[in-house]
Amino acid sequence: MSARTLAELAALVGGELTGDPGLRLDGVAALEEAGPEQISFFSNRKYRAAFLATRAGAVVVEPDAEAPAGRALLRVANAYLAFARISTLFHPPRAAAPEIAPEAVVHPTARVHPSAQVMPLASIGPGASVGPRTVIHPGVQIGEEARVGADCVVYPNVVIREGCVVGDRVILQPGCVIGADGFGFALDPVGDGAGPRHYKVPQVGRVVIEDDVEIGANSCVDRATLGVTRIGRGAKIDNLVQVAHNVVVGPLSILAAQVGISGSTTLGMGVVCWGQAGVVGHLHLGDRANVAAQAGVAHDLAPGERVAGSPAKAEVAWARNSAAFDRLTDMRRDLRALQRQVAALLQEKKP
Amino acid sequence: MSARTLAELAALVGGELTGDPGLRLDGVAALEEAGPEQISFFSNRKYRAAFLATRAGAVVVEPDAEAPAGRALLRVANAYLAFARISTLFHPPRAAAPEIAPEAVVHPTARVHPSAQVMPLASIGPGASVGPRTVIHPGVQIGEEARVGADCVVYPNVVIREGCVVGDRVILQPGCVIGADGFGFALDPVGDGAGPRHYKVPQVGRVVIEDDVEIGANSCVDRATLGVTRIGRGAKIDNLVQVAHNVVVGPLSILAAQVGISGSTTLGMGVVCWGQAGVVGHLHLGDRANVAAQAGVAHDLAPGERVAGSPAKAEVAWARNSAAFDRLTDMRRDLRALQRQVAALLQEKKP
Amino acid sequence: MSARTLAELAALVGGELTGDPGLRLDGVAALEEAGPEQISFFSNRKYRAAFLATRAGAVVVEPDAEAPAGRALLRVANAYLAFARISTLFHPPRAAAPEIAPEAVVHPTARVHPSAQVMPLASIGPGASVGPRTVIHPGVQIGEEARVGADCVVYPNVVIREGCVVGDRVILQPGCVIGADGFGFALDPVGDGAGPRHYKVPQVGRVVIEDDVEIGANSCVDRATLGVTRIGRGAKIDNLVQVAHNVVVGPLSILAAQVGISGSTTLGMGVVCWGQAGVVGHLHLGDRANVAAQAGVAHDLAPGERVAGSPAKAEVAWARNSAAFDRLTDMRRDLRALQRQVAALLQEKKP
Repeated sequence: MSARTLAELAALVGGELTGDPGLRLDGVAALEEAGPEQISFFSNRKYRAAFLATRAGAVVVEPDAEAPAGRALLRVANAYLAFARISTLFHPPRAAAPEIAPEAVVHPTARVHPSAQVMPLASIGPGASVGPRTVIHPGVQIGEEARVGADCVVYPNVVIREGCVVGDRVILQPGCVIGADGFGFALDPVGDGAGPRHYKVPQVGRVVIEDDVEIGANSCVDRATLGVTRIGRGAKIDNLVQVAHNVVVGPLSILAAQVGISGSTTLGMGVVCWGQAGVVGHLHLGDRANVAAQAGVAHDLAPGERVAGSPAKAEVAWARNSAAFDRLTDMRRDLRALQRQVAALLQEKKP
Repeated sequence: MSARTLAELAALVGGELTGDPGLRLDGVAALEEAGPEQISFFSNRKYRAAFLATRAGAVVVEPDAEAPAGRALLRVANAYLAFARISTLFHPPRAAAPEIAPEAVVHPTARVHPSAQVMPLASIGPGASVGPRTVIHPGVQIGEEARVGADCVVYPNVVIREGCVVGDRVILQPGCVIGADGFGFALDPVGDGAGPRHYKVPQVGRVVIEDDVEIGANSCVDRATLGVTRIGRGAKIDNLVQVAHNVVVGPLSILAAQVGISGSTTLGMGVVCWGQAGVVGHLHLGDRANVAAQAGVAHDLAPGERVAGSPAKAEVAWARNSAAFDRLTDMRRDLRALQRQVAALLQEKKP
Repeated sequence: MSARTLAELAALVGGELTGDPGLRLDGVAALEEAGPEQISFFSNRKYRAAFLATRAGAVVVEPDAEAPAGRALLRVANAYLAFARISTLFHPPRAAAPEIAPEAVVHPTARVHPSAQVMPLASIGPGASVGPRTVIHPGVQIGEEARVGADCVVYPNVVIREGCVVGDRVILQPGCVIGADGFGFALDPVGDGAGPRHYKVPQVGRVVIEDDVEIGANSCVDRATLGVTRIGRGAKIDNLVQVAHNVVVGPLSILAAQVGISGSTTLGMGVVCWGQAGVVGHLHLGDRANVAAQAGVAHDLAPGERVAGSPAKAEVAWARNSAAFDRLTDMRRDLRALQRQVAALLQEKKP
């Protein structure tokens, strides 16, 4: 990790520089931890005190940020993105060290590109393939005829079941499961005479994960009953997310932690579901639809529609009704008082 | 996968045939993807357009489905079940290829039936057993004295901890964990003089999974504190589900994805909990109770009781009150208007 | 497991003994399953019938518990804690059998203490270390430069990624993932000319797990973007919990199953979050704050504050308003009736 001048960093991110252009920086750090040879960033106003107190050599800030005199700054329209680029400069992704570890188990019919790395205790099944420069970590199990593309990182203990397809530059965090059977059972009331049973519907489709996707730790993307469960290009999925059979997650969509998408639901481009939200099956969420944390979506969403609550409703109306909910006991008391008053008024009318 | 005639398929599922009984079909496919040599199915009216447009050679439909003239059909009371049977005919479960892979680690005291298959990088601990025709995939770890029955499929990276028992024809999807310690701690305010601590309650029971159960990817069934956590015959559990210590899930019950059942709660036969529902501890849910998605159950449920909401209430009342919630801001406005009107009326009374 | 007299057990837990002090007991069991040579416990009144019917040789009870005459009892202020201690006496944690299994893969630069045990099919990366008496189960993957302390139990298929630190006496249940990348992306609207993309923010911090922590099966603790994600001393985390990047979980805090804590949120000491609760990012929950099951916390909590609901509010007010919600349809009907009555009264006024 060689040092860079502040001017070099400004050039990288197109920022406006305040301070010594020749200042040498050798890494990134949080405001609280940065020293004079590190660059930090400030965009969330909650952390203003830390910004004022930081010992960082320089700080990436938004164009309108107020800053103490004498501080070295990079002002840039999207401080978070600029910081991410600078951090990537100092922390480039680890390159594959081409090798198949002797403790890995690669089936003779599997094809591993010579530039890929397969670490110990990984298994690669019959007919499966691993593309150029991809890193397969220990404990990864890749099933028969599955395909993993180029420049992927498949972290420890990931499972990719038979026939599934992973594109290029995909990152699979530890323990995620690609291609488990979808949850499909038909109630069989007779059960060959042995009484009712849930008859398993064969799950013979597969999962296709397009390029530039990231999937979080211990998340699950089930294979389709028939056809394909698809994660679109550039979509990002956090930890412990459930994506059921035949779901389509559109390109650039974001699913935060512990979200669940039920079977056959399709998401357009750039849809965002926040943490612990759930979506029932056979729906369509239009492009850029936005589902609040813990919401429960039970109907289609139009492009750009924003919903919250369980069952989910328009976010603005939901917020207003939710605020009224906090006064529900008061409302009930007022209602009873009115009932008494009106009853008295009506009583007086009686002859 | 050999071809079958439409007449053969009709005989298999007991359906009423429209079209050429000799039509040869060689597989199943979704309406959108099926070609003239494949059979598809149609039961959800949402997909009527796909049904009308399909190129499928034949389609399984419900008895009352309207269909264009000239289409080959199998009409059957439960189209989904019939389709599942036909799909199973074309996609029979993969049989075990009896072998213990040289890269598997089987303890000398473990007993693996000669007809079972243990794939590379699986481990089977001291005294554990694996029954006839069962397939143990790579990365599966089976603990000391655990028992897995006949005709099971244990997918990659499943963990079955010590002493747990898995019945026959059980399917464990990748990454699920059977027999982790239950979450039991007693607050110890003194902590041997070192201050408060959470004292671990030994979790020395086990898990028993009865026959014909399926458990989803990355789901967890904790061992009992004492005694048994039990998953009853034919129950089906989806992905990322939490079943806590000493829970009993009754036969044929269904737990959808991301459901959580807290400690010592018992479910009767055929209980259904939809996605992300939660149930607190020490309750009983009667046979065929039905818990809506994201509901939070905090009291016992009678047989057949249907609940929704958090905290969960009778589903019908909840739906009505939930609809009223959407007008809460209006109600509040109306209430205030009434208050003003009644105050004015009362004012007039005053001498 | 040698037998103990009731007097010995009374001495261990400081309880008041009723019955024969010389009674020999050789184990613990649940009330329903205990025989005359086992000791059981009773504290939850729900199980009173089982207490009355038990065949247990003796029962640990609270000081004020009513009990049938002639029953051998240990009366103690905290029956659950006392029972936990007695159970630990009969079920001491399994000691490490010092060994590195030949089927484990330990990098030459890793340091495994001679008293530790590394089971088959575990991998320990370059520069990583494992402390005294720690047990590493099969399928565990420990990354480069990660450190695991003394007297830990790391159950099968746990992943500890590079650089993370685990203290002493830590228990990691199967499949949990320590140090996956945090979920951080900056929207890059231009994407080097290829159109919008989510630019990955390098996650170059780590996880520090302090002493005496337990983390549940398939739970995830993400590494920090920069700096540290910290699980404080003695905290206990259940299954399928999500702890995002840069979170701090205070000492002795408890996160029940399926809880999610979003990025950069900090929890004080002794915070409790019940099952499926969620907390948004960049918040602080004060010492001993208590979050009800399925609650959604969207603002800071004061020390000791108790909240429920989504969005979360003061628990008492929420319970009251939630009860009023159940009468919302009635309220709406009453409101309409009042509107008609008042309209009629106002009508009469008109000349």
